[in-house]
Amino acid sequence: MPQTPHVEQHFTAGETVRDIVIGMSDGLTVPFALAAGLSGAVSSTAIIVTAGLAEIAAGSIAMGLGGYLAARSDAEHYASERRREQLEVKEKTAAEEEEVREIFASYGLTDEQSKPIVEALSKRPDAWVDFMMRFELGLEEPDPRRALRSALTIALSYIAGGLIPLSPYLLVPVARTALLISVIVTLLALLIFGYVKGHFTGTMPIRSGLQTALIGGLAAAAAFIIARLIA
Amino acid sequence: MPQTPHVEQHFTAGETVRDIVIGMSDGLTVPFALAAGLSGAVSSTAIIVTAGLAEIAAGSIAMGLGGYLAARSDAEHYASERRREQLEVKEKTAAEEEEVREIFASYGLTDEQSKPIVEALSKRPDAWVDFMMRFELGLEEPDPRRALRSALTIALSYIAGGLIPLSPYLLVPVARTALLISVIVTLLALLIFGYVKGHFTGTMPIRSGLQTALIGGLAAAAAFIIARLIA
Repeated sequence: MPQTPHVEQHFTAGETVRDIVIGMSDGLTVPFALAAGLSGAVSSTAIIVTAGLAEIAAGSIAMGLGGYLAARSDAEHYASERRREQLEVKEKTAAEEEEVREIFASYGLTDEQSKPIVEALSKRPDAWVDFMMRFELGLEEPDPRRALRSALTIALSYIAGGLIPLSPYLLVPVARTALLISVIVTLLALLIFGYVKGHFTGTMPIRSGLQTALIGGLAAAAAFIIARLIA
Repeated sequence: MPQTPHVEQHFTAGETVRDIVIGMSDGLTVPFALAAGLSGAVSSTAIIVTAGLAEIAAGSIAMGLGGYLAARSDAEHYASERRREQLEVKEKTAAEEEEVREIFASYGLTDEQSKPIVEALSKRPDAWVDFMMRFELGLEEPDPRRALRSALTIALSYIAGGLIPLSPYLLVPVARTALLISVIVTLLALLIFGYVKGHFTGTMPIRSGLQTALIGGLAAAAAFIIARLIA
């Protein structure tokens, strides 16, 4: 167990917020842009709704499973690196001691000054492995239950985000009218989402809101133009 | 606050490979699944090509700009945390010294043993700030030129990935025939991509190839079923 107390959280509300942000960013943007693009090519909303829902299914599964495997692979990577460090601390003790000295030398400490640390760590092999994991490799132990929770959070956020731009097409049968409502509703949702996201990530909320709306707007405009050109 | 998923550490070949993986994973999967889904609902490939190209435009812009802003925001976060640490080291020296002692206490070092480190750091304020950034906050300085390069790499990888599943629909006019070719070509591409990705990420290549193909297959199957149900 890495005994790293005192690690300040950059993301004040943790990994769940990050997963919601990942899922909802793409969920609000890509189905929005796809539906807008198709509005440039077809006049019936039926095909747009079909394409939009297919995209939401595909996107949420791809992102959710992707997040699941990324979290699983983080955990496996941590475990395998830890086994390697344990072996090195046991079998290549002198080389590991040299590594500790090098870490501190990079902060301007002489061998004389880092000696007590080397000595103290060499008496506590577990603490030493913890130390190398964090200070040499920069790795923190992942939460084993994170993978599944992360996958579900990302997928559900993608679906929730994607249904916002698609809902006007479900309610209004004329594509251009639905597009107009979808643009207004989604840009507003992107502004609010970006504002809230900025609050959590430390970016200025208003700037974050405008940036998020800009990305969605540009993606939708590009999709619209491309669909018009080929349709 | 770093908005990029925590996958970077186990990538042995650096951030460019990570950006290619991010872009190409989604590029191979989402347009593939969308086109497969629409094949369950329409018989002409024209609308599938339009929707597919609109999705590629939307997805590459959304992901590329998202990557750009994430990298920018990582850099800003690092700079603002660094300014805070610089101020703390200067104005709350005693509290920061206590923090250094606490970091080492968590690895079993006594105050006596960590004293030389505290003394050495307090003589080198810049090294001390570097030390706190990495050891207390776990942050590494981002490359300032990364944002633009990252955005372009992600966007181009998404486009390259997306054109693979879409190309059969461009060449074959019958949707079901194009779907069959697209499934074969894309599953093969996902297997190869996953295999190569596994090589870089440290996951067993064969397992990584199968997992990647499975995600793409599941996403496409879900999109196909949903589109059939509503069409």
